[in-house]
Amino acid sequence: MAESKKIEVMESVYAKNDKLAADFNIELTRGKIFCANVMGSPGAGKTSVLIKLIKELSSPAFVIEGDIESSIDAERLAGAGIKAAQINTGGACHLDAETVMNEFYRTGRDFSGGFLFVENVGNLVCPAEFKIGEHVRLLVCSVTEGSDKPYKYPLAFEKADAIILNKTDLSRHVDFDEKFFTEGVKRLNGSAPVFGASAKTGEGLRGVADWITGRARKVIG
Amino acid sequence: MAESKKIEVMESVYAKNDKLAADFNIELTRGKIFCANVMGSPGAGKTSVLIKLIKELSSPAFVIEGDIESSIDAERLAGAGIKAAQINTGGACHLDAETVMNEFYRTGRDFSGGFLFVENVGNLVCPAEFKIGEHVRLLVCSVTEGSDKPYKYPLAFEKADAIILNKTDLSRHVDFDEKFFTEGVKRLNGSAPVFGASAKTGEGLRGVADWITGRARKVIG
Repeated sequence: MAESKKIEVMESVYAKNDKLAADFNIELTRGKIFCANVMGSPGAGKTSVLIKLIKELSSPAFVIEGDIESSIDAERLAGAGIKAAQINTGGACHLDAETVMNEFYRTGRDFSGGFLFVENVGNLVCPAEFKIGEHVRLLVCSVTEGSDKPYKYPLAFEKADAIILNKTDLSRHVDFDEKFFTEGVKRLNGSAPVFGASAKTGEGLRGVADWITGRARKVIG
Repeated sequence: MAESKKIEVMESVYAKNDKLAADFNIELTRGKIFCANVMGSPGAGKTSVLIKLIKELSSPAFVIEGDIESSIDAERLAGAGIKAAQINTGGACHLDAETVMNEFYRTGRDFSGGFLFVENVGNLVCPAEFKIGEHVRLLVCSVTEGSDKPYKYPLAFEKADAIILNKTDLSRHVDFDEKFFTEGVKRLNGSAPVFGASAKTGEGLRGVADWITGRARKVIG
């Protein structure tokens, strides 16, 4: 099979997905739901960030968790009193619009007037290529991953609307070069704010809550 | 484009890759080169582990680094006195046999009688689906990523020949449940040893060196 055939198939997959994502986004906006696609490496702390972030929001929230297997994250959220559903991709390295839309219509149909957070599969590469109907993209990184990530995984940083630099409680134990990291981000993305945060202590997540509330207000009033 | 078309294309991609990987593996064995495919999440510490591990080996080593962009890792290795080449995938989320083979014949042709480490793109999902000519697969995880990774990313753990649990120097600062992690690994993979290690202090990497030397001896004498 020629490489060109693979590219042709992928282009068709992207086009179909973009169309579904755009339609789903319109539906969400109509329902006064502001949707954030939450991305990051495995273990960056996406779920822990969401638990602390949602406590800072004044509107209701619903979370769709994406993992290859297990329902660990949805159970954690439910345990923290947050409404959550779990998608298992069964191998796929990212979520797509169709999967998220189907899950939302299955489990979130009654939800309106608030935030829909979709936690993508932990992967700093592939999820950035697939829209899922979101209004904004949140990228969760952590100081323990090292400061070179923007240079090595540019697309995720390029496409982010905001970056949460998590695990700042561990900063003094690791060699994280914040200047190098921030310069790498700015080179790719001049507009996304970088929020230092700790899902362990809650530090910094008030700022993220204010930012996302401001963005939501512009879209759903 | 139907999903079946996508599956058909991917099956053909896998088959072509498997064939090339098998051929390249035979060539490497003939050259008395033992090849390890080094996988793990972004920021798990793959490069740092390699720097410390290679110092513990008594045979020469050559490293091929795989990243979407940048030559940060190859430069770090060169700075540590280790022969290294850099592949930039330009977007692709994993290495494949053809890319690795071409890079090896371009930059490693004169290398024989030792270890070839291929550091894959940081990604706990896709690299596990593509052989690159390796004799063994090393999976580098870290305690800062959390103990639930085997449950959420099973394929990488299932296919690993050895697991290096890195950053144990940070263990006392994070909530890592080693029992839960180990149980998750054992459920998927009864034979792969789990080596606790710290690329920062060097702890645990002597054991990995002994293990890989033993495995290499069986294949290349």
